[in-house]
Amino acid sequence: MYATKHISSVQNSLVKRILLLKDKSRERKKTGLFILEGKRELGLAVKAGYAIETLCYCEDLLNVDQLENLIPLEATVNRIGLSLDVYKKVAYRDTTEGVIAIVKAKSHELSDLKLEKEKPFIIVAEAPEKPGNIGALLRTADAANLDAVLIANPKTDLYNPNIIRSSVGCVFSRRVAMGSTAEIIAYLKENKATIYCAALSASENYTKVDYTKTTAIVVGTEATGLSEEWLANADKNIIIPMEGEIDSMNVSVSAAILIFEGKRQRNEK
Amino acid sequence: MYATKHISSVQNSLVKRILLLKDKSRERKKTGLFILEGKRELGLAVKAGYAIETLCYCEDLLNVDQLENLIPLEATVNRIGLSLDVYKKVAYRDTTEGVIAIVKAKSHELSDLKLEKEKPFIIVAEAPEKPGNIGALLRTADAANLDAVLIANPKTDLYNPNIIRSSVGCVFSRRVAMGSTAEIIAYLKENKATIYCAALSASENYTKVDYTKTTAIVVGTEATGLSEEWLANADKNIIIPMEGEIDSMNVSVSAAILIFEGKRQRNEK
Repeated sequence: MYATKHISSVQNSLVKRILLLKDKSRERKKTGLFILEGKRELGLAVKAGYAIETLCYCEDLLNVDQLENLIPLEATVNRIGLSLDVYKKVAYRDTTEGVIAIVKAKSHELSDLKLEKEKPFIIVAEAPEKPGNIGALLRTADAANLDAVLIANPKTDLYNPNIIRSSVGCVFSRRVAMGSTAEIIAYLKENKATIYCAALSASENYTKVDYTKTTAIVVGTEATGLSEEWLANADKNIIIPMEGEIDSMNVSVSAAILIFEGKRQRNEK
Repeated sequence: MYATKHISSVQNSLVKRILLLKDKSRERKKTGLFILEGKRELGLAVKAGYAIETLCYCEDLLNVDQLENLIPLEATVNRIGLSLDVYKKVAYRDTTEGVIAIVKAKSHELSDLKLEKEKPFIIVAEAPEKPGNIGALLRTADAANLDAVLIANPKTDLYNPNIIRSSVGCVFSRRVAMGSTAEIIAYLKENKATIYCAALSASENYTKVDYTKTTAIVVGTEATGLSEEWLANADKNIIIPMEGEIDSMNVSVSAAILIFEGKRQRNEK
């Protein structure tokens, strides 16, 4: 039999545990665990070597065969069948696919990040606020196959359920590291990256700089842009010219425009 | 005195009217009115020639002088002061800036859309679902100063509060028209536009086509892409190569990458 246990009471302590891990960043930090929902997301996490501590699935929504294809039996010891009531209580929204797991977090220390390819291409986001923007940035980084996503002065942990969801699981497939702005600047200089900071005050058109060497593109928040520390340490501050009524774009959109201009140049070479 | 009337009861019929116009697309269509919140958004609407039917402001949150700078006294006959309680009841979120208006909708008929510039650059979105994506697309279109944004087979009206909000008011500054896919294809052909459809099944890299003539870029939904009708009528179907684990990007992100590649080519010419 697949499940090692069945739960049909919403009073079960597992329910409380899942909700706590989902809602509280502090709880995730304390335990080193986080919550993951969805088949695709789970598949990407397993592929990226994440360890599943507890796998819960709703027998009314999901065929166990599908699950075995997704996660090898040996990958998880605790396989818990949930009644529909219990599943609905813990799931992010009713329409997910009947699977939810407690997963062991990985470290995102800058010192663990090894850049293996020649002339790596890196995106840095300083203090991004909205989980949806971080998720979209991770999707773009995945599509462009960037070598690293660095988050400077993070305001949230990476395993925020909204980041996982909006990244469609790319938070697992991408190489992500976090650090202070000072640490990341030191890391980039050590790795001889050319640093391009996106700034509305810049005068250099983003299409006029060279992204074909080791490159880091740095973006700030929509509200306040990048800190002085970044601007002062840039090799060049660049701008996407705005020709309309407003003076800003969504940060994940701006980042995508810059990243894909870099890709275009690299592919032409 | 600025206000022509004061309202301090949440039972007032104006409250019900505002909430109805905000929540119900059908009510907006029936009355030809919609609700607008925020100073910046209001400023863009007035600048774009929208008529303000009723201007409400919260005297506890807003200085009337600011308001007069934003909207000339003669632009609106009904100026209604709201108590904080009433304002909180009708406002989208507590943190907005104390102003909310009932505004007259404009028509978005394709037949009214005149393309004035030479070699216009147009973005088309087919059946976009999420208001946030439409808003982001309008922001990008504004930044790129596109000549038109066309929405084919729309699933929502343009004055959905979430579109207005996520577009930061660009829904007013942009030239937007709606129509069926067949109507828009006919319109583009009449205007001799080269049609590039973004499709995951396409083989032509988006950087390898020419955007410098009259051009329409067409994007579909993330879930289902573009209809066969579009793909069959394209001059070329184009693709942003995906090199990562997943096979799609956020639709507003993809559109921005395509639009700014077009802009780059046009600026180089």
